[in-house]
Amino acid sequence: MDLQTITSPSFLKELDNKQLVQLSEDIRKFLIENLSRTGGHIGPNLGVVELTIALHKVFDSPADKFLWDVGHQSYVHKILTGRAGQFDTLRQFKGLCGFPKRNESDHDVWETGHSSTSLSAAMGMAAARDIKKEKNHVIPIIGDGALTGGMALEALNHIGHEQTNMIVILNDNEMSIAPNVGALHNVLGRLRTAGKYNKAKDDLEYLMKKIPAVGGKLASTAERVKDSLKYLLVSGVFFEELGFTYLGPIDGHNLEELEENLNYAKKVEGPVLLHVLTKKGKGFLPAEQDVIGTWHGTGPYKMETGDLVKSSNTAPSWSGLVAETVRKLARTDGRIAVITPAMPVGSKLEGFASEFPDRMFDVGIAEQHATTMAAGLATQNMKPFLAIYSTFLQRAYDQVLHDICRQNLNVFIGIDRSGLVGADGETHQGVFDIAFLRHMPNMVIMMPKDENEGQHMVKTAIAYNDGPIALRYPRGNGLGVPMDSELQVLPIGSWEVLKEGTDTVILTFGTTIPMALKAAEQLQEQGINAEVVNARFIKPMDSAMLHEIFSRNIPVVTIEEAVLQGGFGSAVMEFAQEAGYQEAVIDRLGIPDEFIEHGDVGELMDEIHLNSDEVVKRVTKHVQIQAKAGSNAL
Amino acid sequence: MDLQTITSPSFLKELDNKQLVQLSEDIRKFLIENLSRTGGHIGPNLGVVELTIALHKVFDSPADKFLWDVGHQSYVHKILTGRAGQFDTLRQFKGLCGFPKRNESDHDVWETGHSSTSLSAAMGMAAARDIKKEKNHVIPIIGDGALTGGMALEALNHIGHEQTNMIVILNDNEMSIAPNVGALHNVLGRLRTAGKYNKAKDDLEYLMKKIPAVGGKLASTAERVKDSLKYLLVSGVFFEELGFTYLGPIDGHNLEELEENLNYAKKVEGPVLLHVLTKKGKGFLPAEQDVIGTWHGTGPYKMETGDLVKSSNTAPSWSGLVAETVRKLARTDGRIAVITPAMPVGSKLEGFASEFPDRMFDVGIAEQHATTMAAGLATQNMKPFLAIYSTFLQRAYDQVLHDICRQNLNVFIGIDRSGLVGADGETHQGVFDIAFLRHMPNMVIMMPKDENEGQHMVKTAIAYNDGPIALRYPRGNGLGVPMDSELQVLPIGSWEVLKEGTDTVILTFGTTIPMALKAAEQLQEQGINAEVVNARFIKPMDSAMLHEIFSRNIPVVTIEEAVLQGGFGSAVMEFAQEAGYQEAVIDRLGIPDEFIEHGDVGELMDEIHLNSDEVVKRVTKHVQIQAKAGSNAL
Repeated sequence: MDLQTITSPSFLKELDNKQLVQLSEDIRKFLIENLSRTGGHIGPNLGVVELTIALHKVFDSPADKFLWDVGHQSYVHKILTGRAGQFDTLRQFKGLCGFPKRNESDHDVWETGHSSTSLSAAMGMAAARDIKKEKNHVIPIIGDGALTGGMALEALNHIGHEQTNMIVILNDNEMSIAPNVGALHNVLGRLRTAGKYNKAKDDLEYLMKKIPAVGGKLASTAERVKDSLKYLLVSGVFFEELGFTYLGPIDGHNLEELEENLNYAKKVEGPVLLHVLTKKGKGFLPAEQDVIGTWHGTGPYKMETGDLVKSSNTAPSWSGLVAETVRKLARTDGRIAVITPAMPVGSKLEGFASEFPDRMFDVGIAEQHATTMAAGLATQNMKPFLAIYSTFLQRAYDQVLHDICRQNLNVFIGIDRSGLVGADGETHQGVFDIAFLRHMPNMVIMMPKDENEGQHMVKTAIAYNDGPIALRYPRGNGLGVPMDSELQVLPIGSWEVLKEGTDTVILTFGTTIPMALKAAEQLQEQGINAEVVNARFIKPMDSAMLHEIFSRNIPVVTIEEAVLQGGFGSAVMEFAQEAGYQEAVIDRLGIPDEFIEHGDVGELMDEIHLNSDEVVKRVTKHVQIQAKAGSNAL
Repeated sequence: MDLQTITSPSFLKELDNKQLVQLSEDIRKFLIENLSRTGGHIGPNLGVVELTIALHKVFDSPADKFLWDVGHQSYVHKILTGRAGQFDTLRQFKGLCGFPKRNESDHDVWETGHSSTSLSAAMGMAAARDIKKEKNHVIPIIGDGALTGGMALEALNHIGHEQTNMIVILNDNEMSIAPNVGALHNVLGRLRTAGKYNKAKDDLEYLMKKIPAVGGKLASTAERVKDSLKYLLVSGVFFEELGFTYLGPIDGHNLEELEENLNYAKKVEGPVLLHVLTKKGKGFLPAEQDVIGTWHGTGPYKMETGDLVKSSNTAPSWSGLVAETVRKLARTDGRIAVITPAMPVGSKLEGFASEFPDRMFDVGIAEQHATTMAAGLATQNMKPFLAIYSTFLQRAYDQVLHDICRQNLNVFIGIDRSGLVGADGETHQGVFDIAFLRHMPNMVIMMPKDENEGQHMVKTAIAYNDGPIALRYPRGNGLGVPMDSELQVLPIGSWEVLKEGTDTVILTFGTTIPMALKAAEQLQEQGINAEVVNARFIKPMDSAMLHEIFSRNIPVVTIEEAVLQGGFGSAVMEFAQEAGYQEAVIDRLGIPDEFIEHGDVGELMDEIHLNSDEVVKRVTKHVQIQAKAGSNAL
């Protein structure tokens, strides 16, 4: 069928199984074709085609509430709720969002992006329903990876206790963004095996290994375990223990089985967990065969071959540069250990992992644990490198503050994807980290102007032994600059003048340095001689240079690809105030007090007036005001 | 024995059981006597006397690492490691800290305060040990309440998967700070019952209730459950499923049983969970009989009767005022529901809970879940009130930002214990919330000058339907002001002039308003006429009033009992900069960039120069400078 004719999922009620199977084929074809042009989260969506169809057939959205955990698997849901026609704008500026979005459709009842929120939100929605004595169903759909996030486990614990009516769909594809880790994953693995292949013998061996050497009071353990073997093998005792009715595992690509089980789940009192086995990338061979996660989310690709359309930027990726520099240093520094919360691929840590398997820890989606585990390592004179995306570091705010900064531990935090990230949109923009780290005592924050300085900053962070130190780096690739062969340790808090000038000083760092240099050129054409400073340490700042700058009494403009409230520009104002430069003229450019949607980073920057034209405009205004004041004084 | 003669726990190795029992009596007596004078966490510490003795007897601290989760139960550990002589200064300024403190002793290897961090830190320490091929034991001691915190569950999942050698002591007192909640608590309850009383019949009934109505493919479920009944009853299958060897439950007040099991646990390969049953307050009748948590932590008391020494302040407590006003409004507003993460007593929510049990949710120690559950309720047009301490809201930074603010949901956050909290010290000071909430788009933040304005702000928050709104209130009691009988809705963003003045303007809010008024009086004596403004909305600020103030061109001084970096004073500077008041003279008083230790709040404020004398000093300086500049201009 022509998917663009769909306006509501109600048409599904009339379709028979054969028609549903045909529909799932049409949707797969649509996704493979459309995403080949726009890019997007192809793997997760191909995995949930039948599941999404079955959900919309059995339940009545939006009265019944679907909560898509993480949310990058909501494309099929978007198609079935009347948005197929917008897929040519997917993840583009002002186009269809890659995640559920309440202002797009009444069927999107909960917005996601970060993982593991769906169960808590579902508990809130179910509680509201029960308070109002309403009758709708609440159905969070959560992956096996997201289930290991602490807040999802907190929610399971609460929901099981309250015995709230809710149908949790565990979408188990044996892999989240990277291969899954954690004991819970082993639990799922055993359930999967038991249900599908009944490999009782393997499981028996597994369990027997777990029986402790016994004696005395503990003598009956072995016997007990044998007694209960059958139960363990063929039931979801883990979830049952938490108070859930466990159903499954079932084949997530079999529409009849899905429908039957969803209809059954509807009737059960109390919380139900339906364990659904799906295959990421189902129906598109390159994605099905992907084991390392390339096809989790991609840019455009050739539909026929699955070849990705290559980026024209051949400079090293920031993630790769940082990870490989850490790896190099680890060859002579046994203190270095690496922790990633489920992002070994995104953070380009495969090389480190294969060279130093004993010093590599992928802890799964568990940002809090990752951060405090790093603190624990640091107490033992190790030098942990915590590689984490800016937006996910938000999950570990208290762990950075209470565990790392308060104890002043030598943890090196690599803040990947800092600044605007583009297509993933408002849930993933890495624009808050400066504002939330800057007020933490003992924290050092730096950001390099290019990948050469980036490698020196990695060296600097490893050499620094006076407390926590964070290195911000953006999504994407470096600038292609020449790389020094010898790594240098930069003095903590030192800035660098990139271009001298007498009329104004522009203070900035990282990705906005090219903008500042461009603005300086534009200003030169107007006869304004702007100084550009690489303010590479955001905390502590270069106070000697700041004193020198403010003593010149010329306008100072700060630029940051981060929120203005409490950001770097505010830090500069705080300095000027505390140091008594009461007449300092300071202007700040950055991200305004709003959430920034998805789109091309350049377009987004123009939209919020964060570009060289605006820098020129601001500087010109201040220089003119000052010139006028000066001439008045004469 | 005289506990003050202890310098190291090594003396325990020589003691026989009778002597150890005597020692435990001596320690109990010491605690009951000393804490009657200083106050402190009496209940938790009386519960772990034997456990702590046994741990120090069996293991070799500090080579073996004890990690006290939450940490308020570390007094016995402090006594056994040579700090008995400092108990007269417990929780006082420059005195013994009420939590583990690395600078106090080599035996304090991990500092706590917030809950649920010990397992992650232990994983870091164990990983460091394994990387270095060392052999020490790592022993986190975690309560049943703290175990439900998301990061503890994340850690269990990771540790079980890695099969790291570690001995987790589950200190199960059936109650954390309030009675425990959550399915995990039910799991523990069954283990407790099974091990101690073997009430197989009750458990059978429990399990039978959980068997779903079956049919078709699911027909064998009932049989499976019956088969495995025995296993479920007498083993720790929940923990075993996660990869732990489960031992217990054992009597945590029986020194021989503790020693035997700890010695056994030492020999087991892989992670062990030793389930120890203890009684909070053991040996002190008033504390033993406490069911609502009064004796968790107290001020001074009469040792003979257990009567608490009453505070002289008879004004309503802030927690009580806010909770009771919410309760009053809930009588006519069915949208109101209350969520607390395990603080129903501290947040004084018992009244609401008994009047509106269907709208009250104690989710256990689970700040992330609590916050996002509130967001879920708000999507369904409910008006959730999330009562949370400032320091614990840090745990939910991302949930407030990503789930509540980003979706602009009507959640009312009551930020209890804002500002300095005193005796609990640096882990509990509520001084970061303004800096971390202020940069979140859509957030409204307010703080009242007294309890009368406080009740109006509760009304204001409930009436506000344009997004999230947070009400900060301090620890302790109000000022004893008269209370209006009718509640008012304050205009969002409106400030109030408390005292007019012509020479300077002091902007402040909440607890520091009396300081500002006192400073104004002192200034008046010097002939300086200071205006004092109640800047009760921290975000959004009263821009009309700010324009009026800055147009007067007199010095502006801000005061906040919160961190200066990115705080309220910075917001005022940001306003002045953005509005073009480049010549504004602004000075900021607040908490400097360091962690503030424990002690009396007044002493702490003097220590950091946050008092009226400093306000006077700053104002005087600026007024003099301006006067001089004015006379020069003439």
